[in-house]
Amino acid sequence: RPAAKTLDSLTCRLPFLNEADGLKQVLRATLLGNGSRRENSAEHSWHIMLYAWVLAEHSADNIDIDRVMIMLLLHDIVEIDAGDAPIHGHIDQVALAAKEEAAATRLFGLLPKDQDTEFNTLWHEFEAAESHDAIFAKSIDRVQPVLLNLLNGGGSWVEYQVSLDQIDTRVGQKVLRGAPEVWHHVRARIKPWFDAV
Amino acid sequence: RPAAKTLDSLTCRLPFLNEADGLKQVLRATLLGNGSRRENSAEHSWHIMLYAWVLAEHSADNIDIDRVMIMLLLHDIVEIDAGDAPIHGHIDQVALAAKEEAAATRLFGLLPKDQDTEFNTLWHEFEAAESHDAIFAKSIDRVQPVLLNLLNGGGSWVEYQVSLDQIDTRVGQKVLRGAPEVWHHVRARIKPWFDAV
Ligand SMILES: [Ca+2]
Repeated sequence: RPAAKTLDSLTCRLPFLNEADGLKQVLRATLLGNGSRRENSAEHSWHIMLYAWVLAEHSADNIDIDRVMIMLLLHDIVEIDAGDAPIHGHIDQVALAAKEEAAATRLFGLLPKDQDTEFNTLWHEFEAAESHDAIFAKSIDRVQPVLLNLLNGGGSWVEYQVSLDQIDTRVGQKVLRGAPEVWHHVRARIKPWFDAV
Repeated sequence: RPAAKTLDSLTCRLPFLNEADGLKQVLRATLLGNGSRRENSAEHSWHIMLYAWVLAEHSADNIDIDRVMIMLLLHDIVEIDAGDAPIHGHIDQVALAAKEEAAATRLFGLLPKDQDTEFNTLWHEFEAAESHDAIFAKSIDRVQPVLLNLLNGGGSWVEYQVSLDQIDTRVGQKVLRGAPEVWHHVRARIKPWFDAV
């Protein structure tokens, strides 16, 4: 490997990794399991990668779990510029998509060309939610906050006054596509909470 | 897949994933890049997985990057029970190793047997730092705090009164084994900071 190329690559890559540190300061609507504070998007990304690895055999379709892991590693990096969009909040989807696209261009654009292309491609595949890998990745991203809310006593469901019908529409349908067994299991556990509200 | 097996697996896996939430509350010695607070071990794990993926071509040896990613995903989970041991702190290594071993037994033991074995095996391989995959994973785990300290103006180097010689011994030698180009690049950037102290 020529020394010049190596030097160039590190000169691009380390600033990208420094910028990525900002994801630790993007706060989500969800509280930690013990309710002590909001979850940030970096630790969320770690947690759902663990979910994906542990729950891979519950995928509805055949997946390449290694690709799913990288999708989840990257999926929230655009939030460093564009912020987190709470699933139960009121969001201008067109404006958000434009902000996230600009964020992907700027942030992944810090990397050498081949990695920029790889990251953009994987992120767009995740967002499109059409491939088996992306469908499973999305189902995991959606189900983890449900488990946290169940642990912390309702968290963002209380704050956003969410009903079980809304959970079924906004979360359940997406989890069912990628990990139906997981959703059946989880829904049976959250129903008593909503029945008691 | 028989329904009974699926149910059993989820009944084990979801409590493990709930326990793993605790890693978000294990604080490290390192501050975030902007110095605003200490980094926790969950977001650290995410960050070094991103480091590993982006820097994979700088590995000293041939590695299976997908295995490295899972090693890094898991490597700090024992801290939920055993706490983080600051690299520049004074640590009873024998007592710590026993605590971490008990933590691995308890935490990974929440999972179905095959995953318990897989996680224990990967974690021990990481700790032993003998395989190419583990050597690269360790080098990444060690180099990331150096970059954060450089960003935040010295952070844990100031707090623990660390010298450049100590960095070379405690960090540099380990990063050199797995990612020598990265260490040469990073050391050239931290030297001016230590020269100026
Ligand atoms: Ca998100």
